[in-house]
Amino acid sequence: MSAPVIPKTQKGVIFYKNNGPLEYKDIPVPEPKGNEILINIKYSGVCHTDLHAWKGDWPLATKLPLVGGHEGAGVVVKLGANVKGWKVGDLAGVKWLNGSCMSCEECELSNESNCPEADLSGYTHDGSFQEYCTADAVHAARIPKGTDLAEVAPVLCAGITVYKALKSAELKAGDWVAISGAAGGLGSLATQYAKAMGYRVLGIDGGDEKKDFFLSLGGEVFIDFTKSKDVIADVLAATHGGAHGVINVSVSEGAITASTKYCRANGTVVLVGLPAGAVCKSEVFNQVVKSIHIVGSYVGNRADTREALDFFTRGLIKSPIKVVGLSTLPEIYEKMEKGQIVGRYVVDTTK
Amino acid sequence: MSAPVIPKTQKGVIFYKNNGPLEYKDIPVPEPKGNEILINIKYSGVCHTDLHAWKGDWPLATKLPLVGGHEGAGVVVKLGANVKGWKVGDLAGVKWLNGSCMSCEECELSNESNCPEADLSGYTHDGSFQEYCTADAVHAARIPKGTDLAEVAPVLCAGITVYKALKSAELKAGDWVAISGAAGGLGSLATQYAKAMGYRVLGIDGGDEKKDFFLSLGGEVFIDFTKSKDVIADVLAATHGGAHGVINVSVSEGAITASTKYCRANGTVVLVGLPAGAVCKSEVFNQVVKSIHIVGSYVGNRADTREALDFFTRGLIKSPIKVVGLSTLPEIYEKMEKGQIVGRYVVDTTK
Amino acid sequence: MSAPVIPKTQKGVIFYKNNGPLEYKDIPVPEPKGNEILINIKYSGVCHTDLHAWKGDWPLATKLPLVGGHEGAGVVVKLGANVKGWKVGDLAGVKWLNGSCMSCEECELSNESNCPEADLSGYTHDGSFQEYCTADAVHAARIPKGTDLAEVAPVLCAGITVYKALKSAELKAGDWVAISGAAGGLGSLATQYAKAMGYRVLGIDGGDEKKDFFLSLGGEVFIDFTKSKDVIADVLAATHGGAHGVINVSVSEGAITASTKYCRANGTVVLVGLPAGAVCKSEVFNQVVKSIHIVGSYVGNRADTREALDFFTRGLIKSPIKVVGLSTLPEIYEKMEKGQIVGRYVVDTTK
Amino acid sequence: MSAPVIPKTQKGVIFYKNNGPLEYKDIPVPEPKGNEILINIKYSGVCHTDLHAWKGDWPLATKLPLVGGHEGAGVVVKLGANVKGWKVGDLAGVKWLNGSCMSCEECELSNESNCPEADLSGYTHDGSFQEYCTADAVHAARIPKGTDLAEVAPVLCAGITVYKALKSAELKAGDWVAISGAAGGLGSLATQYAKAMGYRVLGIDGGDEKKDFFLSLGGEVFIDFTKSKDVIADVLAATHGGAHGVINVSVSEGAITASTKYCRANGTVVLVGLPAGAVCKSEVFNQVVKSIHIVGSYVGNRADTREALDFFTRGLIKSPIKVVGLSTLPEIYEKMEKGQIVGRYVVDTTK
Repeated sequence: MSAPVIPKTQKGVIFYKNNGPLEYKDIPVPEPKGNEILINIKYSGVCHTDLHAWKGDWPLATKLPLVGGHEGAGVVVKLGANVKGWKVGDLAGVKWLNGSCMSCEECELSNESNCPEADLSGYTHDGSFQEYCTADAVHAARIPKGTDLAEVAPVLCAGITVYKALKSAELKAGDWVAISGAAGGLGSLATQYAKAMGYRVLGIDGGDEKKDFFLSLGGEVFIDFTKSKDVIADVLAATHGGAHGVINVSVSEGAITASTKYCRANGTVVLVGLPAGAVCKSEVFNQVVKSIHIVGSYVGNRADTREALDFFTRGLIKSPIKVVGLSTLPEIYEKMEKGQIVGRYVVDTTK
Repeated sequence: MSAPVIPKTQKGVIFYKNNGPLEYKDIPVPEPKGNEILINIKYSGVCHTDLHAWKGDWPLATKLPLVGGHEGAGVVVKLGANVKGWKVGDLAGVKWLNGSCMSCEECELSNESNCPEADLSGYTHDGSFQEYCTADAVHAARIPKGTDLAEVAPVLCAGITVYKALKSAELKAGDWVAISGAAGGLGSLATQYAKAMGYRVLGIDGGDEKKDFFLSLGGEVFIDFTKSKDVIADVLAATHGGAHGVINVSVSEGAITASTKYCRANGTVVLVGLPAGAVCKSEVFNQVVKSIHIVGSYVGNRADTREALDFFTRGLIKSPIKVVGLSTLPEIYEKMEKGQIVGRYVVDTTK
Repeated sequence: MSAPVIPKTQKGVIFYKNNGPLEYKDIPVPEPKGNEILINIKYSGVCHTDLHAWKGDWPLATKLPLVGGHEGAGVVVKLGANVKGWKVGDLAGVKWLNGSCMSCEECELSNESNCPEADLSGYTHDGSFQEYCTADAVHAARIPKGTDLAEVAPVLCAGITVYKALKSAELKAGDWVAISGAAGGLGSLATQYAKAMGYRVLGIDGGDEKKDFFLSLGGEVFIDFTKSKDVIADVLAATHGGAHGVINVSVSEGAITASTKYCRANGTVVLVGLPAGAVCKSEVFNQVVKSIHIVGSYVGNRADTREALDFFTRGLIKSPIKVVGLSTLPEIYEKMEKGQIVGRYVVDTTK
Repeated sequence: MSAPVIPKTQKGVIFYKNNGPLEYKDIPVPEPKGNEILINIKYSGVCHTDLHAWKGDWPLATKLPLVGGHEGAGVVVKLGANVKGWKVGDLAGVKWLNGSCMSCEECELSNESNCPEADLSGYTHDGSFQEYCTADAVHAARIPKGTDLAEVAPVLCAGITVYKALKSAELKAGDWVAISGAAGGLGSLATQYAKAMGYRVLGIDGGDEKKDFFLSLGGEVFIDFTKSKDVIADVLAATHGGAHGVINVSVSEGAITASTKYCRANGTVVLVGLPAGAVCKSEVFNQVVKSIHIVGSYVGNRADTREALDFFTRGLIKSPIKVVGLSTLPEIYEKMEKGQIVGRYVVDTTK
């Protein structure tokens, strides 16, 4: 393969201060460090986290100025001096965890996401809302040849995250998993992963359209919170004693507390979203007497990434997306802020 | 062994309604059912739970009238018709879990304590504050010959409970465990079990006397909350990044929330006390980003009981007790209510 | 429901000494003990273990005279005096583990199958090759109303056993499991359970017919040992580094040793059959350097039974059977001894 | 700290072909690659594996010519261009696993030792029998300041290896672990780690001197195979049913097979030595009926290394050594070959 021609400048969406204007403009193409690869991003998913980064409402400061985005899929165009195991032309993905120290206790234990020096795409490291993005070679996702780069984009964050959450529930095949917010962006992926992992899936969400969508993905029982008189009682009844695991994709505090009540004895409630300022409240008496586990699940590590992509590559996960041009990103942020997003937006960096 | 003579009546402490008078008086000796053994209780520990049972302030109704007590050690004097594996003269213990259905999903999985039909000593089944008490033969604790029955009494609830809590933290030898309330009745047992399990023990409590006591039990680092300017920072510093596990013997809501902050990434916070009405509050952002587990741990199952007793029998656990007569029980309740209890009271049923 | 009329005598197949004649004749209907239920067996599967019991070639003596059979499905007709949780008319199954002490360390830990006092149907306890059979109420399998009793029969031993073996491999969804002997009686059930549990299934067996059958059950890759030049190399290639788990349904010593070579590093080889006198041989250097686990898996416990039946009830497991009369059992033994059995025989006790 | 002066040549022991002369002579000081550190080795332990490397009798070719040794403790004197997290003057250890790819599935899962591209000190990479040795910065062991470098040397292989083996047994505090070969070099370390991990330790070895040594290390029960009439029966009796775990430090095939017989039901037999050509033989019937696990345990990963060193640093592990000059290494090899080694030899690289 002849070496690709890499331009000096490129199109990207950048902001210079939190809550400041999102500018679609010409910016320099970054140079990969010794340990990095340069990826020509073709498509990037847009995630709620991007909104938090722009707002700066999390208890962790962002880099500024910042190019957001952490669900980027593209082609490797250049290798840093010390990179092994990659070659120009490989398909690669930029994910939330851009890099980590690889030497601390958490990295040693394969908990790279919990590394205190974690470098985060679209947060502390310029992300995938540009045509060319750098990524640590050890952490960049390996995407199999032939993969649809637009469809795989949301798997790189949303897919990995829900897959990790499901693993964190420590269920076995045949167990009931309840997904609170089952028909949304994360929920619909969680439903499919749960089904592929052999679990029985109960979904909680609102409305007939969502019910039909959930059932079409392989869900087994749907509880409509707009119709149910007692969601807790309904889950307990449908699962004959409570869900063995709960994935709280919904970030409502009330929904989280309810999930500690419809979780089966010795079961696991997983927290996975990152609402700014929210608190998980659980009655001690209930939690102790039923020996409930409440577990925080962050993004996946490298192994989780490989596994989550493998499910997608094998055709078990469908990722319904709307592809728009990168230049329209400011409008998508506006919609996200207003809660008007349905489904997953993916931006085409060439437009 | 010649069959022991069993009287028709005995001394016991009974109450007829929640918060009603605690009466030390003659009551009938119970008759064991087919599946039960009758135990001549020699000593019984007094536990905070006994106060909740008397007050009726938990969301689970007590039997009435009720003989309390669930830490009773004694001698088997009679066997029910279908009992196997016990003989008259064996030493036996009455514990919180008097019996369970042995057929439900939880019982099948050795989670007997979570059985929906759990029968609870001193709560739904007359307990060990009497000279003769019945217990399900399958659940009664087997106490090795030669054991000091007064000293073992508190192990039957407090010991098993903290041992189970430590197991629920899923630590490995060499890990740091923080015990919040380390020098109290439960805490001092937890410290000793933790030490015997190969953990490094950090204790949190208040005052120099408690510090000395904690260190004498094998504790390694003591944080005095009456002197520390920042308990969270102090634990993080002493453990180089946070405790791998936390046992919340203290039931203060503030202490529980703090424990989610000084827990190491991927570590486990264990809730073990049963304060009426308390809520565990955890910031979702912190819990997710650090992948913290918050786990409710109830009382042990039969295997936990056997194991916890084995540590005691091997001399690894000292149980400092004050022995008083059963007739003085009402005064002990009064002290408990006023928070004046230091150490563990054990009642001698013959006095 | 009016009480069923229970006859004094019934038809059964009995033998009086190992290797002696198998007699189809009138024998007394057994009386349930206090802890037992009496089941009117409708159908019973025939298993290779029945041949070992008759021959007496295992290092554990059988009861004599003996009625064999441990895959019996029927209807409860009578309850022992102390039985709880069953009623006349319920569907129940007789499985290999007829009863256990419920009090030893193994029983306490839910490893009932490993109880030193395990009572075995068709081995130490008269089994299901008769119209009426007794079973310990705590251990008898609960079969949901409406289940096809002929089809469920082989699930009660073969199904539970392969399900337990798959659990013993400690795999996660998406892992490769190799099944050595994939198209036989046990193998075909293992293939279906593995598929339902989310694993990728590689089957090893001989011949095109077996290949087609295996693929029809959801298997993904078939290695024909009659055609492969190097089975080990072929498995390593197909699984990109070795199977994460191996289920050795085939009991050939050579096949077992080979499985330690095509197992992935840190993977698990499961031994599940019980060939008389066979030895598992593993090269220490290979096993250590690849950190391979070799695990013996016996029959399932009560929870495994419930779970394995649940997969069947949900329609995920098909059990291809040939139904014949109980009176023809001696001929089936003859075929088993000659290795002429294809598929699973189920006997109808009324014929 | 001023940069240390690094000479061009140094003393080392080298051989040019397997079984060829071991020459103590001047050899060049190696230059660290970009990812490596250069360590001034002060002391190095001598291990049986060094003999296998020299003989070349394992199914894996050695580098030639080769400097052996993989238990080297010293001081960092130079950093490769891309090294982070180390500085000149730090104490560092060379261990068996010198480096690995850090990108394959095994490395991703923290099973670095099983990496197909593992680089092995004193085997495929010149080792610690020289004054200056290179090591991958990510893998080199971090030795706390103030550590005795001679005493820590054997911990870097023998200590880590037995610690990992104990972890592989998946025991809990209070369980019985049997150590076959308990008073030898590996066994005496295993006994101390087991004790520190809260296990009850039963040792098997021969002779009163070994018995006294074992008991002095904290062992609880000693079985002398030169006196016992039935080792299997004696272990079963002493442990009331079998050891929960067995560490086979002894590499005799007979001892390994025996260990499958005195292992408790559902227990784990660990294989840890690497005898050339040995085979582990286990009766299938016994292994299945007792659900025994036989597990190969290789050397530890980075986390195991950190943990094993931490036990040593805390004073829980004593490492009895004999320090001799590096120049005497050929004589030690001769003794090892003749089986005359008692205790652990450590060579001082300056002599």
